[in-house]
Amino acid sequence: MKLVTYFRSSAAYRVRIAMNLKGLAYDPEPVHLTRGGGGQHMAGFRARNPLGLVPLLTLENGVELTQSLAIVEYLEETHPSPALLPKTPLERARVRAFALAIACDIHPIDNLRVLRYLKHEMGQEQAAIDGWYRHWIAQGLPALEAMLVQSGGEGPFCFGATPSLADICLVPQLANARRYDCPLGAFPRLLRADVASGALDAFKMAAPDAQPDAA
Amino acid sequence: MKLVTYFRSSAAYRVRIAMNLKGLAYDPEPVHLTRGGGGQHMAGFRARNPLGLVPLLTLENGVELTQSLAIVEYLEETHPSPALLPKTPLERARVRAFALAIACDIHPIDNLRVLRYLKHEMGQEQAAIDGWYRHWIAQGLPALEAMLVQSGGEGPFCFGATPSLADICLVPQLANARRYDCPLGAFPRLLRADVASGALDAFKMAAPDAQPDAA
Repeated sequence: MKLVTYFRSSAAYRVRIAMNLKGLAYDPEPVHLTRGGGGQHMAGFRARNPLGLVPLLTLENGVELTQSLAIVEYLEETHPSPALLPKTPLERARVRAFALAIACDIHPIDNLRVLRYLKHEMGQEQAAIDGWYRHWIAQGLPALEAMLVQSGGEGPFCFGATPSLADICLVPQLANARRYDCPLGAFPRLLRADVASGALDAFKMAAPDAQPDAA
Repeated sequence: MKLVTYFRSSAAYRVRIAMNLKGLAYDPEPVHLTRGGGGQHMAGFRARNPLGLVPLLTLENGVELTQSLAIVEYLEETHPSPALLPKTPLERARVRAFALAIACDIHPIDNLRVLRYLKHEMGQEQAAIDGWYRHWIAQGLPALEAMLVQSGGEGPFCFGATPSLADICLVPQLANARRYDCPLGAFPRLLRADVASGALDAFKMAAPDAQPDAA
């Protein structure tokens, strides 16, 4: 398989973790999202992924898949072990809700194309844009912490003794929060899952700094 | 079951459609998202859903679920017929990618709390905010159209002869586009799915204007 990736993309980071956890090898195909107006916006790439976003996974048969959570669900259905979702519908709903709280309600609002619009189309200063970035993280992380506390699990991962789709989404989001110096001290349950995840090779190998296209 | 809903919320609209398609009855529990700073932001509601967003589904046993796509996946797993996802992993990945392109990459950026931030924290005029709203729809709809054209299906729904999670996400997004006078003529495949969906009682009954809390 081949994965169109960008070292700093949270969505690509999620898929890299999932593939590593499942022991699936892939050839990285890096695109640069900031140089020259965004390499992924080339017409050629839009023909492959109309939304012009990473990641994009090319299967062995040449079929191409987009959207990180759809890709992880596909990998889960085609390579069920180790499982990245729990067994019961209710537990699965909890893990998916946590993942979607990040993938829908935090990350897209802080995505690069949005920050660019604030700067170029709305004329916002960098300080205001940084404030925007931190605001949506500050809105989201307390909710994520509360979701884990409500679930009452013992950890150390978000939902149990093994990493799930929730950890796959959390770790890249916390990496973004640190890049923007967002305070994390109020989120012990999130940090516990982050530490447990960070100890695993699957997460280490997927980290932005470990990618071939890292600056 | 009880559903915390707001007539104009796209995410609640998705769940209303899914429940109607599966023939599941629910008691609506409307909250008003614009009056008095947002009824859903009451401390009481945040204790139930830390992110403070609708929808929230209360099951018969009192358990509460959040995040529209996680709720639809839960309904699909617990009430499989009629199916809202295809059978093969690849087809499921296509439907989920389409749904996520809306639920992650269009809708959250145009959500009410984001528009409010642009107005109150960034001091943007209404015309600039409307331009923002239309921009993300104008970015997203061509990609959605291309995804359906690429899939090569005969319709009339997004992915085949019956409605799926894709149509459940598309119809509320197109309703939003119309509210903001976004041009739709370039998207015949999306409009075809919209017309096919709009003819079904499950979609009609879920429409914003048909809700008890509609203005």
